[in-house]
Amino acid sequence: MMKKINLEQKFSKLSEYWCPRVISEMNDYQIKIVKIKGNFIWHNHENTDELFYVIEGNMNIHFIDSTVSLDRGDLFVVPKGVEHMPSADAECLVMLIEPKGIKNTGNIDHDLTAENDIWI
Amino acid sequence: MMKKINLEQKFSKLSEYWCPRVISEMNDYQIKIVKIKGNFIWHNHENTDELFYVIEGNMNIHFIDSTVSLDRGDLFVVPKGVEHMPSADAECLVMLIEPKGIKNTGNIDHDLTAENDIWI
Repeated sequence: MMKKINLEQKFSKLSEYWCPRVISEMNDYQIKIVKIKGNFIWHNHENTDELFYVIEGNMNIHFIDSTVSLDRGDLFVVPKGVEHMPSADAECLVMLIEPKGIKNTGNIDHDLTAENDIWI
Repeated sequence: MMKKINLEQKFSKLSEYWCPRVISEMNDYQIKIVKIKGNFIWHNHENTDELFYVIEGNMNIHFIDSTVSLDRGDLFVVPKGVEHMPSADAECLVMLIEPKGIKNTGNIDHDLTAENDIWI
């Protein structure tokens, strides 16, 4: 690898919402970017935490009994097994970090389930 | 955990250069922030890759036969075992991600070796 990656450039190549794309790897983890807008679906990742870092815009992560609102520069780690539903009123750009092979819809198969391990 | 973390707020609490502080964890990885200025030391991390993401400013990562210059929004993963020396002409704010327990000076003991696992 040994290549610098500029997130703004990478985001400019992303068109579809809710389709994470891989931009780099660290050990057995992948760094992904995703553009989001609207509501995702409720799901959880049974075996792994998931890191969200907001690059631009505002998003929410809904939990069963609370909601967290994240702005640019906010970081949040959803613990493994915790049911959550990301949403964004307007377009929001997010960096995700999680182990390789993690499905975006976690324990759920859905129209929003994105093909995995696609690099941009 | 389940707490949102604002990087700007966290950086405002950091004073010393080259002293990474932990702001969150994801599985067995830690998310750290560090302020850097001047030259660090040559070192490597034998067993792990190391992720650098520039939050503010400009930094360099020197390798034996090349140098990469990173600006705000640039991400770089130094592969395990690769000898490197970070530097910054002016203050630069960086997010680091690596497994828990990784020493900032890698294979070298030095005055710049920071105490590990200190949260901010």
